[in-house]
Amino acid sequence: MIADFVVSPKTEAEVIEILKVCYEHNVPVTTRGAGTGNYGQAMPLAGGCVMHMDKMAAVKQIAPGRVVVEPGCLLKDLDAATKADSGQEIRMFSSTWATATIGGFIAGGSGGVGSCTWGSLRDLGNIIRLRVVTMEAEPRVLEFRGEELARVSHAYGTNGIITEIEIPLAPAYDWVDLFLTTEDFMDAARFAEELGNEDGILIKLATVFEAPIAKDYFQRVAPHVDSGDNLIGLMVAPQSMEGFLTFLDRRPEAKLIYRSDASDWDRTPGLVFEYGWNHTTLRALKFDPSITYLQVRYGFPQHLELIEKMRTSLSPEVLQHLEVLRENGKVMFAGLSLVKFTTEERLDEIVKMHEDAGAMIFNPHRYTLEEGGRQSVDDQQLAFKREADPKGLLNPGKMIAWDDPDWKYAEMYAYPKMQAAE
Amino acid sequence: MIADFVVSPKTEAEVIEILKVCYEHNVPVTTRGAGTGNYGQAMPLAGGCVMHMDKMAAVKQIAPGRVVVEPGCLLKDLDAATKADSGQEIRMFSSTWATATIGGFIAGGSGGVGSCTWGSLRDLGNIIRLRVVTMEAEPRVLEFRGEELARVSHAYGTNGIITEIEIPLAPAYDWVDLFLTTEDFMDAARFAEELGNEDGILIKLATVFEAPIAKDYFQRVAPHVDSGDNLIGLMVAPQSMEGFLTFLDRRPEAKLIYRSDASDWDRTPGLVFEYGWNHTTLRALKFDPSITYLQVRYGFPQHLELIEKMRTSLSPEVLQHLEVLRENGKVMFAGLSLVKFTTEERLDEIVKMHEDAGAMIFNPHRYTLEEGGRQSVDDQQLAFKREADPKGLLNPGKMIAWDDPDWKYAEMYAYPKMQAAE
Ligand SMILES: Cc1cc2nc3c(=O)[nH]c(=O)nc-3n(C[C@H](O)[C@H](O)[C@H](O)COP(=O)(O)OP(=O)(O)OC[C@H]3O[C@@H](n4cnc5c(N)ncnc54)[C@H](O)[C@@H]3O)c2cc1C
Ligand SMILES: Cc1cc2nc3c(=O)[nH]c(=O)nc-3n(C[C@H](O)[C@H](O)[C@H](O)COP(=O)(O)OP(=O)(O)OC[C@H]3O[C@@H](n4cnc5c(N)ncnc54)[C@H](O)[C@@H]3O)c2cc1C
Repeated sequence: MIADFVVSPKTEAEVIEILKVCYEHNVPVTTRGAGTGNYGQAMPLAGGCVMHMDKMAAVKQIAPGRVVVEPGCLLKDLDAATKADSGQEIRMFSSTWATATIGGFIAGGSGGVGSCTWGSLRDLGNIIRLRVVTMEAEPRVLEFRGEELARVSHAYGTNGIITEIEIPLAPAYDWVDLFLTTEDFMDAARFAEELGNEDGILIKLATVFEAPIAKDYFQRVAPHVDSGDNLIGLMVAPQSMEGFLTFLDRRPEAKLIYRSDASDWDRTPGLVFEYGWNHTTLRALKFDPSITYLQVRYGFPQHLELIEKMRTSLSPEVLQHLEVLRENGKVMFAGLSLVKFTTEERLDEIVKMHEDAGAMIFNPHRYTLEEGGRQSVDDQQLAFKREADPKGLLNPGKMIAWDDPDWKYAEMYAYPKMQAAE
Repeated sequence: MIADFVVSPKTEAEVIEILKVCYEHNVPVTTRGAGTGNYGQAMPLAGGCVMHMDKMAAVKQIAPGRVVVEPGCLLKDLDAATKADSGQEIRMFSSTWATATIGGFIAGGSGGVGSCTWGSLRDLGNIIRLRVVTMEAEPRVLEFRGEELARVSHAYGTNGIITEIEIPLAPAYDWVDLFLTTEDFMDAARFAEELGNEDGILIKLATVFEAPIAKDYFQRVAPHVDSGDNLIGLMVAPQSMEGFLTFLDRRPEAKLIYRSDASDWDRTPGLVFEYGWNHTTLRALKFDPSITYLQVRYGFPQHLELIEKMRTSLSPEVLQHLEVLRENGKVMFAGLSLVKFTTEERLDEIVKMHEDAGAMIFNPHRYTLEEGGRQSVDDQQLAFKREADPKGLLNPGKMIAWDDPDWKYAEMYAYPKMQAAE
């Protein structure tokens, strides 16, 4: 699973040239942003060419509420440019903000910090336009808007190379990072949900960590908490801090232990969002390599009930890590639960318990489109792949439906290529 | 009900001086912004001094996400100043934006254009700080934040004069004004609610008008609609127009008839929000003086069901006018229903039908705090009035609880002073 050669196009014209040559010689092409895709989406399963996007990183145009950017730009660099230009920033980003690219986020991510306000990347309005090059004898350059965006966003680079991105911007504020603790876990979950429902308080992140995640896995936070403390991590707009403190006063069950604008901690904990989303698992793994995680959807309006149920049945084998997320206008939770791995059978059992209760699971242990994030074949993406990558050379092995059109979610664990790859 | 004299203080020091002198001589003081308060809140019921705030209109400080302003500043002028300074605008405003003051909006309003995103003025975070002068022998200057804001916001100037306001700002965009029609009324209501629930599409207004409101009362819209057309009025951020058009394509039942960024109408209809909120009634009244209105709360999650029920029972005697509003994180509707007035008894009957169904009514035909907006005595405001206006000289007659501590909502129609005033 290593590439035969690596290229770094500097322009769209060079992307076209590379695809043309690879098409002619039947060479697979795997596009790579920063390679943080944690389902292994940018692994060149079939060898061939790895196309690095790092030289296509220009911020091309900034206007009120929108930006046009090349795919290789780091999320962090993009925010710096839009902030310097006009006090703006991207609506949402993966917790890999410091290292990941905007192209990789759009082709491989789903949401993250900011999704408590703006929903997910796939929601209407969170991507304005994508420019895409196809993998054909004569590669075409296409511009997608509206419904067509779904063809290539979150398609893992399997059906076209994104060369330009237009996305909306939100105002950039000096977000205040906060940590709070509660003794009772459900108090923490309710606190986060209720804050998410405060229409006048602007937040960018609301994360809940069951005890003893903070004590055991968060080195810089550990000195300030006990093993029994559940932790809440927040990003609040400075102009909303007065409102937030009033909200907090009404909830004596929550204790504020850290605010970045007035901290007395010896060592700064760093950015709060680098504890959330997939960074929680990353931190836990450093202390306990037997840990894995599940990606759970706790949908409105059963979310709190489902969370309580799963926790009652499974804690501490499964520790709750929750992210406030908006879906269809409602505050609910994404769960990125930490699981102490024992056997495949037990993991399957845990997955089944969630699904039986009504909590949908996105299996993070798989790196294909269908297994990782979607659970079903995306007909639109598949149809577009037929047209845009007729030889199936783009990121081969990542779209099961391409290799096996009859694939069904129920057979997920049975797909032989996947099992071999694990 | 006319003032004995009028003053226009230019500074807080002058406000203090005026209150001091009036206190000494037992002269009632009614504060006045622009006098648009449509419950008659700024009427000097007891004569005395009317204090105009028009000379205290400075925008004092603008920062990312917030502004400090004097109360007499027109909403329109405030927006112009913050937009010019840093591309910002106030989160919400009454549809009287062009004529009303920020002080009058905070002392007498509840929300409006922008409340579909940010909730109501009373929601945590929508006011940061208020500076208030009391009506005592030696007037005090107090600064309120957090819970204390509720003492004076929406208190009709009955317990202190607001001399400085700090509120949050949102980014200013060149909002696209839109009109759409549907044949079926509930299609229009669903359209507005579903748009309100699109997390990635930024809107500032979503209004629904039952047929034939548009044809009968909206002169500039009438040539473009039929009597049977229900109308939807929207303000959408320009960067959200792509997403909006996709949303629209999925709903063939709605027809786009006007967009301000690409209009082919001979005569511009003007600003869409000047058709919404209380402006709807104003426009209807010009054509039919027998019209009055009811302010209804269609709460989540029964909102659509309640609306359908009221409409089935009462249309066309009562025509639905709906405003998308966020409350506790959920999209719901405020109704400002147009009522063809016949008798007081029938109006009472209509009110009762709403209340029996579970749709709360704020009676707009009364101009006291308790009758108009609150339905119950606000103990916090009453307690603060005892302290800040011991002689009861501020805007007398507007806080029933002051004159009659045993007043109950159930006796609303029996309060004799009110009936006399009508
Ligand atoms: C610790 C950690 C935390 C994470 N947190 C989040 C999170 O909060 N939210 C989230 O959504 N994801 C998260 N992820 C997953 C991943 O990091 C993000 O999706 C990230 O934004 C990917 O960016 P990248 O530049 O590293 O992309 P890569 O990993 O390089 O690529 C991702 C996918 O996109 C394809 N691709 C890259 N560029 C292009 C292009 N120009 N055209 C077409 N296809 C392309 C690749 O082929 C690959 O399939 C996390 C991962 C880790 C390891
Ligand atoms: C056509 C129409 C549409 C409207 N639309 C809306 C709407 O969408 N949303 C909404 O909330 N309201 C609405 N209103 C009601 C009203 O216009 C608004 O509340 C408006 O913002 C009031 O501003 P004003 O300057 O006219 O205040 P005024 O009417 O002058 O005063 C309102 C109240 O505040 C008090 N007051 C004024 N200034 C001060 C001060 N500095 N300190 C203390 N008390 C003070 C007055 O005594 C009075 O009781 C509407 C009214 C009309 C006629």
